[in-house]
Amino acid sequence: MAGVSHIVVDWGTSSFRLWALDRAGAVLAERRSPQGLAASGAEGFETVLESHLAALALPESVPVMMCGMVGSRAGWVEAAYVATPAGLDGLTEKAAHVPSARRLIRILPGIAQRGAAGADVMRGEETQLLPLIRDGFKGLACLPGTHSKWVRVEGGEVSGFATFMTGELFHLLRSASILVPAVEGAAMVDPASDAFAQGVKDGLAAPEMLGNQLFRLRAAWLLEGEGPQAALARLSGLLLGTELAGAARFGGRGPVALIASGPAAALYQVALALAGVADITTHDAEECVRAGLHAAAVTAFRLERTCA
Amino acid sequence: MAGVSHIVVDWGTSSFRLWALDRAGAVLAERRSPQGLAASGAEGFETVLESHLAALALPESVPVMMCGMVGSRAGWVEAAYVATPAGLDGLTEKAAHVPSARRLIRILPGIAQRGAAGADVMRGEETQLLPLIRDGFKGLACLPGTHSKWVRVEGGEVSGFATFMTGELFHLLRSASILVPAVEGAAMVDPASDAFAQGVKDGLAAPEMLGNQLFRLRAAWLLEGEGPQAALARLSGLLLGTELAGAARFGGRGPVALIASGPAAALYQVALALAGVADITTHDAEECVRAGLHAAAVTAFRLERTCA
Repeated sequence: MAGVSHIVVDWGTSSFRLWALDRAGAVLAERRSPQGLAASGAEGFETVLESHLAALALPESVPVMMCGMVGSRAGWVEAAYVATPAGLDGLTEKAAHVPSARRLIRILPGIAQRGAAGADVMRGEETQLLPLIRDGFKGLACLPGTHSKWVRVEGGEVSGFATFMTGELFHLLRSASILVPAVEGAAMVDPASDAFAQGVKDGLAAPEMLGNQLFRLRAAWLLEGEGPQAALARLSGLLLGTELAGAARFGGRGPVALIASGPAAALYQVALALAGVADITTHDAEECVRAGLHAAAVTAFRLERTCA
Repeated sequence: MAGVSHIVVDWGTSSFRLWALDRAGAVLAERRSPQGLAASGAEGFETVLESHLAALALPESVPVMMCGMVGSRAGWVEAAYVATPAGLDGLTEKAAHVPSARRLIRILPGIAQRGAAGADVMRGEETQLLPLIRDGFKGLACLPGTHSKWVRVEGGEVSGFATFMTGELFHLLRSASILVPAVEGAAMVDPASDAFAQGVKDGLAAPEMLGNQLFRLRAAWLLEGEGPQAALARLSGLLLGTELAGAARFGGRGPVALIASGPAAALYQVALALAGVADITTHDAEECVRAGLHAAAVTAFRLERTCA
């Protein structure tokens, strides 16, 4: 394949996504698979990576920039967390060098926060933030997920952040709690539904009542026969509303860059509007991680080639 | 066995407790077993009950008053919820009649709250409250558990209540979440530990940050090597502190009757003190349920015998 300048890979717990990019960051080819950490660890990380590169008939000289859980302790090579504040240069400089006889392979580190602001970590999201940082964004970035991140970006750096277990709580409650019979059989949450909006409002208005609001979902099922679709939407809304109440404390109601993909984007857009956040820009999470990896690759490999 | 006036039974999801009482409510004999709803449903509720009565050599004329999940839809006979406000007389009048050729058997109903106050239900706890109601208590009762109850008692009635899923969240988070490695191997939570107190304070100060505070437990394990004992105590404290922040909204900081047994009593005493609740009286949950069942039995069976 001609014109490929570098390879970028987002390698997470449950998925592997690879793109072959030209010098300007345009996508020439891509590979996707469910070969996340658990699957790849057994097969061997290098074997998995090289099989995808071979399928694209890429020469050995092409360098690879990666991010995500592949750089965790349980990954290929640990890329130790960089401390806040952290920007593009700091992350790129601290990229872990993966031993390979075939090519340059680097893994971007995550970011750790310590001290009075509270211990917190991210790994993978820092790369999604790089395009915002490059473009001079100043404000809060919101990255929904199993562990949603709220990140303060200013002066070309991540200055602080807070992770909320919202997605994981949603999963636990819908699948393993006393709420199961109330939500069983529900399809995806409709962001336009009244039930979702009501949940968001209740969560925003009284986040300290979350434990009670959750139980009321069961009581509404028992006493009023509330259906699973409405119950699941209220559950989702309650958890998002509570998260937004916390995020307001963390960073006010200024401009928010929402970095999301799939159903989360629409849910958070509705919830943020209900929280009174007027200035929202939405960015596709996959485009962001690819652009972030590209920026890191350009910075790192140009530097390394110049020095060599 | 001589002198037995009536039998009282607390029959829950996972346990069966029976006491033979004299006219004044003194315990003449007791039976305990893990024959909760699941186990008993298969064997047959009447078979289980009669086997315990036979073991005590009790005549068939002795009547039985029961409470708990045995009166739920999945129980022996459903004792439909009584609406708030509800007191001793209302609960006793609505006790479900269990068909039995051998003896009078009644099951006390639970209490349901509907309308603007929010849908909520209790079943079993209402019986624990009867001694407080009898003694003219006015204030909030707190009944810790898998689903903790905060109950407003006034004028000889339960006027309203709120259930918090605190215990269930604790169980889910410690056993099935990303926090498992941080708390694995911890023994019971020490109510006197700094970590527990810190969790309570954090939960009280910023209940809207619960989802974030939970993730920080993982971050503290990753970054600072916090041990499982401290992490579990902080987790417990966070959830209790958040519940108390909600309970303050529900009912202020007036007199609180804590109805608890086992480790929960000490944990809630510490947490309530940290929340600034000065007027706390502690009651043993088992003594309360037995005394409540006795009061209901005296009311119900005297009435029925008089009418017969």
